[in-house]
Amino acid sequence: MTSTTADPVRTEIELIDAYWRAANYLSAGQIYLLDNPLLREPLRPEHIKPRLLGHWGTSPGLNFCYVHLNRVIKARDLDMIYIMGPGHGGPAAVANAWLEGSYSEVYPRISQDEAGMQRLFRQFSFPGGIPSHVAPETPGSIHEGGELGYSLAHAYGAAFDNPDLVVACIVGDGEAETGPLATAWHSTKFVDPVHDGAVLPILHLNGYKIANPAVLARIPEDELVRLFEGYGYAPIIVSGDDPAVMHREMAEALDRALDEIARIQRAARQEGSARRPRWPMIILRTPKGWTGPAQVDGLPVEGTWRAHQVPLAGVRDNPGHLAQLEEWLRSYRPDELFDGEGRPVAALRRLAPAGERRMSANPHANGGLLLRPLDLPDPRAYAVPVKEHGRATAEATRVLGDYLREVVAANPSNFRIMGPDETASNRLGAVFEVTDRVFAGELLPTDDHLARAGRVMEVLSEHLCQGWLEGYLLTGRHGLFNSYEAFIHIVDAMFNQHAKWLKVTRGLPWRRPIASLNYLLSSHVWRQDHNGFTHQDPGFLDVVMNKKPEIVRVYLPPDANTLLSVGDHCLRSRDYVNVIVAGKQPAPVWLPMDAAVAHCTRGIGIWEWASTDGGADPDVVLACAGDVPTLETLAAVDLLRQLLPELRVRVVNVVDLMRLQPVEEHPHGLSDTEFDALFTTDKPIIFAFHGYPYLIHRLTYRRAGHHNLHVRGYKEEGTTTTPFDMVMLNDLDRFHLVMDVIDRVPTLGGRVAHIRQRMADERLRLRAYTREHGQDAPEIQNWTWPH
Amino acid sequence: MTSTTADPVRTEIELIDAYWRAANYLSAGQIYLLDNPLLREPLRPEHIKPRLLGHWGTSPGLNFCYVHLNRVIKARDLDMIYIMGPGHGGPAAVANAWLEGSYSEVYPRISQDEAGMQRLFRQFSFPGGIPSHVAPETPGSIHEGGELGYSLAHAYGAAFDNPDLVVACIVGDGEAETGPLATAWHSTKFVDPVHDGAVLPILHLNGYKIANPAVLARIPEDELVRLFEGYGYAPIIVSGDDPAVMHREMAEALDRALDEIARIQRAARQEGSARRPRWPMIILRTPKGWTGPAQVDGLPVEGTWRAHQVPLAGVRDNPGHLAQLEEWLRSYRPDELFDGEGRPVAALRRLAPAGERRMSANPHANGGLLLRPLDLPDPRAYAVPVKEHGRATAEATRVLGDYLREVVAANPSNFRIMGPDETASNRLGAVFEVTDRVFAGELLPTDDHLARAGRVMEVLSEHLCQGWLEGYLLTGRHGLFNSYEAFIHIVDAMFNQHAKWLKVTRGLPWRRPIASLNYLLSSHVWRQDHNGFTHQDPGFLDVVMNKKPEIVRVYLPPDANTLLSVGDHCLRSRDYVNVIVAGKQPAPVWLPMDAAVAHCTRGIGIWEWASTDGGADPDVVLACAGDVPTLETLAAVDLLRQLLPELRVRVVNVVDLMRLQPVEEHPHGLSDTEFDALFTTDKPIIFAFHGYPYLIHRLTYRRAGHHNLHVRGYKEEGTTTTPFDMVMLNDLDRFHLVMDVIDRVPTLGGRVAHIRQRMADERLRLRAYTREHGQDAPEIQNWTWPH
Repeated sequence: MTSTTADPVRTEIELIDAYWRAANYLSAGQIYLLDNPLLREPLRPEHIKPRLLGHWGTSPGLNFCYVHLNRVIKARDLDMIYIMGPGHGGPAAVANAWLEGSYSEVYPRISQDEAGMQRLFRQFSFPGGIPSHVAPETPGSIHEGGELGYSLAHAYGAAFDNPDLVVACIVGDGEAETGPLATAWHSTKFVDPVHDGAVLPILHLNGYKIANPAVLARIPEDELVRLFEGYGYAPIIVSGDDPAVMHREMAEALDRALDEIARIQRAARQEGSARRPRWPMIILRTPKGWTGPAQVDGLPVEGTWRAHQVPLAGVRDNPGHLAQLEEWLRSYRPDELFDGEGRPVAALRRLAPAGERRMSANPHANGGLLLRPLDLPDPRAYAVPVKEHGRATAEATRVLGDYLREVVAANPSNFRIMGPDETASNRLGAVFEVTDRVFAGELLPTDDHLARAGRVMEVLSEHLCQGWLEGYLLTGRHGLFNSYEAFIHIVDAMFNQHAKWLKVTRGLPWRRPIASLNYLLSSHVWRQDHNGFTHQDPGFLDVVMNKKPEIVRVYLPPDANTLLSVGDHCLRSRDYVNVIVAGKQPAPVWLPMDAAVAHCTRGIGIWEWASTDGGADPDVVLACAGDVPTLETLAAVDLLRQLLPELRVRVVNVVDLMRLQPVEEHPHGLSDTEFDALFTTDKPIIFAFHGYPYLIHRLTYRRAGHHNLHVRGYKEEGTTTTPFDMVMLNDLDRFHLVMDVIDRVPTLGGRVAHIRQRMADERLRLRAYTREHGQDAPEIQNWTWPH
Repeated sequence: MTSTTADPVRTEIELIDAYWRAANYLSAGQIYLLDNPLLREPLRPEHIKPRLLGHWGTSPGLNFCYVHLNRVIKARDLDMIYIMGPGHGGPAAVANAWLEGSYSEVYPRISQDEAGMQRLFRQFSFPGGIPSHVAPETPGSIHEGGELGYSLAHAYGAAFDNPDLVVACIVGDGEAETGPLATAWHSTKFVDPVHDGAVLPILHLNGYKIANPAVLARIPEDELVRLFEGYGYAPIIVSGDDPAVMHREMAEALDRALDEIARIQRAARQEGSARRPRWPMIILRTPKGWTGPAQVDGLPVEGTWRAHQVPLAGVRDNPGHLAQLEEWLRSYRPDELFDGEGRPVAALRRLAPAGERRMSANPHANGGLLLRPLDLPDPRAYAVPVKEHGRATAEATRVLGDYLREVVAANPSNFRIMGPDETASNRLGAVFEVTDRVFAGELLPTDDHLARAGRVMEVLSEHLCQGWLEGYLLTGRHGLFNSYEAFIHIVDAMFNQHAKWLKVTRGLPWRRPIASLNYLLSSHVWRQDHNGFTHQDPGFLDVVMNKKPEIVRVYLPPDANTLLSVGDHCLRSRDYVNVIVAGKQPAPVWLPMDAAVAHCTRGIGIWEWASTDGGADPDVVLACAGDVPTLETLAAVDLLRQLLPELRVRVVNVVDLMRLQPVEEHPHGLSDTEFDALFTTDKPIIFAFHGYPYLIHRLTYRRAGHHNLHVRGYKEEGTTTTPFDMVMLNDLDRFHLVMDVIDRVPTLGGRVAHIRQRMADERLRLRAYTREHGQDAPEIQNWTWPH
């Protein structure tokens, strides 16, 4: 393309092409060049990196979209961010941030000149430098793209409650094969064009993944169009490989799409249309590794899977490859793109948006900048009155629901509750007194609290809930994900990636803290007696505990009031992943609110009111974490008081699981002195735990008293049965805890063998009772803490 | 509907309706009735179960499909199984198995008479009885449906390489919202109509989930049809609530669909058509809780979310509800359906298919019955020759790939390799010498080993890979899932459910053992230096270890020959989940093949050739598990030999991680005597572990020497850097291991402080080297075990 006319469109397209060439040059430069960044001298082997790492294949497409998005941002003064699903195309994101100047603002060493360009190239995928993927280190990103599947959910999460934001989201055709992405297209049924911003998906068909073609690139166009029409979009196709043609087509497509978004929003906001719109999307078909080497060693590269990573390998040792690389790099005509100092030429600098309109500097992509603290009510106002320990009964999550109702009411535009159709069944239904479930599909009179707008998002996809919430949090808002405990494993991998993101941001002062990701896991293992074995899995805690201690928090409030205290604490926190496990069934409330707050503040403590050791020198420590284990422990203490009144029992309750770890390993960890003061170093500890018992050993193995520790927990036994049979199946029941005490307190000796036998007999009797009557015996159902 | 004519179609439909009423009656009976199963007397409160558990809402739809599938099975002598995505409709599956007689064959106590019916009702969701969901206990099922999302992937897995099988798969509209299900529709691009059977998906739109409408039930029909046309299907819609009309329409729809399947298969098999067919599917729209109570307490129930579980609650205490229940149950006219003895009347019994044509007795749904052992080559034939320990170099997975090539060649119809586009990049590419990747989309000349038929299935969805493989294994075949280690977390939840399924089948003698689910995790944490932090996560092992010890096996072969031995062992095993972690990069081969086999057979052992303790009384034990940790450990031993020649070092290598557990906890566990003989009870143990270090503590906390154990592993540190920097970042490198030895062997004392300092200096020097040169220092890259 050469400039032979003053046609302003043509001139603009030439500039766009130049900008694209600059970004492509900078992308390839990052993959290959240690030095000679502007090719001011002939390329020599020592200019080449010793290890060639990076993904070229997707980069030109990312750059192509970037410059065209810049055009519409400027033309329309758009507030836009860019989610790059193919985040392994890290060089593209970095290249554009550098071109826009924001990279140098964040990292002044990487200046916008030749020296900076050389450092920019060298640092990429280089020890001590930056990762090869779009990463927290990349300005303008809220999405890593290392693990594929979540770009579109992140995009929608960013758009919710941001009515003036447009989120451009490029979806790679590889990523499009993942399950989470395949269902994320249905987010169209959860967008409110009045209060939410718009997502503009760009499905990028470059045809190949690592070695395989991409499914969506290999179906007839008619089928492809129907698929996206079926998902609720109006697709616009841009397809080709001639840059001059493609620039015009892409510009037209974006104008059409943004006109349509504007029309949709106007219709909804000014004209009151309640019809679900057909949102525009773009299907962009370009060659993989576009503008890169067409052939290498006689094999086709551009447009094939061979372009996925580094199209020319062995450049240092292969003069032919070196020459081909130089020819390829020079094809972008760097002399036209960068001035004598190595800066982008003025015309290119002028092409980029300015200030916060730059996608690499948009504050939505550094959500902590926009974070407003939640307006939170005093949780004490929702407390269950407790005059005597354990004499009040409450459904813990229902009590939290009352509190959440006020959170929702007081924060109508920056707090959302996500969950897979379980907000009511998890007994948070009070929120529906002040809000609705969001749904943009057809509404019927039989629907329950369903509306175009609301604070609760329910879809039977934990992936979507998690992805939406991540996008929402990363752009500076707050939320809660409530789920059945067992099925939160569905998002193990997403949790891992979010925790990794948070870990890295801790080292980036320019990334401001965001609200924590809060999980409320209810319908937990011990009360899935009705749903059976598939619904019983407390192992998410084990996944969580593998992540960096400074990121993760796990809370097991034993009752409604402690849940209130913990919930309030988590909503105030920043940059953590908080996991709260709480029951929804009627259960004793052990602590008055003041005591609950104090207990949660400590995170762990002796319950003197339940203990019989007079505050010192117990014969045995009964520890517990979780609501059902606490209940069984206290029922065991009740039995011990009756059966072995001389036994000095200490009850320790754990709310904050991290307290068990050594202080050197976790900021919440107890010192050995503190731990030993609670648990002793020489007395048997019977620990009734909510989850898999190994986790307690893992947390405490360094403690002096660890060899005295005996943990009961879920040992993967269960079926459809009664609640008490569930604890019996796993030897966590009160009678078995008494047997454990007898087995482990040496001073009791053989004289209590009859008591042990009585406990074993009770278990058999109660199991027989449930099998005859189909429910737990009344003495189990009606047990309360004695007073 | 009454019989007033001899019209055979009408008569058949009346019979079908009667059969459906029988199944509905039996479904509702299971939810409600303790006694009086045939309503031979008026319903009284004591006939009602004390706890009402179960899911009515989906059951009539499941039953409706069942009887219509029975019709076509008989009419066409079809070999068909039925996957019920809404597996929480357990009563429906059980009801039909009982009607067909197979339930009583498997469980003779549940006889096909009144007494059996009473037991059938009572046992459902009752302590000591059967789970509320379709479960391993349910004859005819390979799919639980407790955790939603996997039905369609299971269905396709069952169909692969079963050319004469038709897999009917009902997909609930709730499940359809999940990611795994949303992408599973694309399985159409991986079915070969010549060699594979057919899947007939039935999308069941009953409109509601627990409390919310289902997305696909609330989009315009045109949009819905486009969506499934876009997925590659030809949808047939059956919609309504009048049974008489619906029976005719469903029968016609099934005839159309099965005619079309037959036509497609004929075209492909006899006429050689290579076009990807548009497979038929059925969209069935019926009310939720169809035929159940229309209203309860003035609120609509049938056709709404209120029908999801138990439409009438409090039946025991509410005479109005009791009367309504009786009216509802009698609406099925049980007297017409069951004879004096309580058996289905003869006309209904005749309606069901016979023998193995019954879906509840089809051997494909009890795959162990059909399992043929793999024809496996001798792995020794592929061994890397090793004359001196560690002097040969090999890429472990490439060596395994040679072996797998022969497995593929020798087992052309019952072994598949699944993976998300990584078979070649994980260096198993030798299999492509004898097979191809399956793809039914458009093929291009640039494609690499892509064909309509093949043994390798690659799709960028770990969910699909896992679901397909599960379906394939559960129907009696064999396979291997190769994946990047970090991203196998994507299927944590699916693994959990499969492990739970296997655990339950262990207690069901009529379920025959199936081939193990084999994971090969490569591109592991230590060699994701190039992809960075998101690709580094060895935590799947922690998830696996929470499942029942009799089900799970974890292998960490340290080199190519041990990988061969482990791989061969896993392919011969049954009813396990085997996890193998192995590297793909060039690495030392430590053991000649005979020694490798012996070492793997023991699973753990002292490497005398690397030890310097003369077989007894070491000063320190260096233990290792995993290829990179083994390399660093041996390099540390090399350093110790040079720097501290008097130190008596023992090297213990662990292949089979379960050996570390106590024998009481895992069948592979070592006795304390054996463990102590390897690790000593009083010497420091420095354990270099592949994964998160806690796992080793969790496995060994009961051992006498546990307090001497110091574990190095991945502590969640990493980025894009060099391989050696990765181990340094996590303190797993040889120099740090030497420092650990110095810190923990008390006899060394302060006199070796200078050596410790030298190690620390080496680390700094090497880090600086990588940051300057972008690669590891030659002495690291070229290190070999001394001879």
